[in-house]
Amino acid sequence: MRRIVYLLITLVLVAGIVAFTALASGDVDEEAAPLFGVRIPPGYRDWRLISVAHEEGNLNDLRAILGNDVAINAYREGKLPFPDGTIIARLAWSYVSSEENNKVFGRSQSFVAGPPANGVQFMVKDSTKYASTGGWGFAQFNDGKPADAAVHNTCFSCHQHVKDRDFVFTRYAL
Amino acid sequence: MRRIVYLLITLVLVAGIVAFTALASGDVDEEAAPLFGVRIPPGYRDWRLISVAHEEGNLNDLRAILGNDVAINAYREGKLPFPDGTIIARLAWSYVSSEENNKVFGRSQSFVAGPPANGVQFMVKDSTKYASTGGWGFAQFNDGKPADAAVHNTCFSCHQHVKDRDFVFTRYAL
Repeated sequence: MRRIVYLLITLVLVAGIVAFTALASGDVDEEAAPLFGVRIPPGYRDWRLISVAHEEGNLNDLRAILGNDVAINAYREGKLPFPDGTIIARLAWSYVSSEENNKVFGRSQSFVAGPPANGVQFMVKDSTKYASTGGWGFAQFNDGKPADAAVHNTCFSCHQHVKDRDFVFTRYAL
Repeated sequence: MRRIVYLLITLVLVAGIVAFTALASGDVDEEAAPLFGVRIPPGYRDWRLISVAHEEGNLNDLRAILGNDVAINAYREGKLPFPDGTIIARLAWSYVSSEENNKVFGRSQSFVAGPPANGVQFMVKDSTKYASTGGWGFAQFNDGKPADAAVHNTCFSCHQHVKDRDFVFTRYAL
């Protein structure tokens, strides 16, 4: 009897360790965004800069658009459509008036990046896998968690407006 | 006589090639910024992103602040003062209302990076060479040419206001 109890405790511990390891490594289904199955690309914060922007209104953010090497090379060579393997990342931060900068300048003119805002978005090019959406998979993560399917349903319909630029809004900032 | 003419032609050609090569490689005194002698660091457009900002008023730009590896590591480790070898680059572009984005959104809310504006600026940390200006050398280049001494005279007096952050305005955008 005691042997069975030890065996059960061991099994529970092993199951717990396996589950914890899977969660910690992000290697669980819940981490993939709905519809397109895109996961957060490792190291995207280190990618090179494509451009910057400011959105007013409800978004009210400052944003940076970064690209992996495939994306940056395609942009610089003016290559359209973007080749498979392209990933474009859109980071955004709250649009914050910088009191400390304004004091130095002697007037209110400086706006800086505050805390992260509006999630992180990715466009992943795979012309086979995402053939029905212009070759692009779309994803948004809020605090590291994928947004729901309703959010992801809006991506392609909006990006269709820039079909002539391979569905990508952002131009490269020279 | 003919031999001397050939010799002279050869000398002129060699001098021309040497001058052209020096200019093409940017290895001439005119390319260094006044006061601090800073030159444009090769490959700075490929550096990683520190943060983004928007300046109103006369500047009227969207800007990206990039850092070389020493800068990025120091920022991420919260290391102050920044170590020697740190270089921080400030790129900027005209603040342009994006008509094409606004059409898609159905309202005027989107501002993007237009043509380059307000030059490119660099802060270079060398605590020995620039001991009298907080360890920083400052430079601004407009269309690849250094701005004049009067412009460079304003750098340190303004950055002195953020002495407690090692004279650096920009905070790292998480």
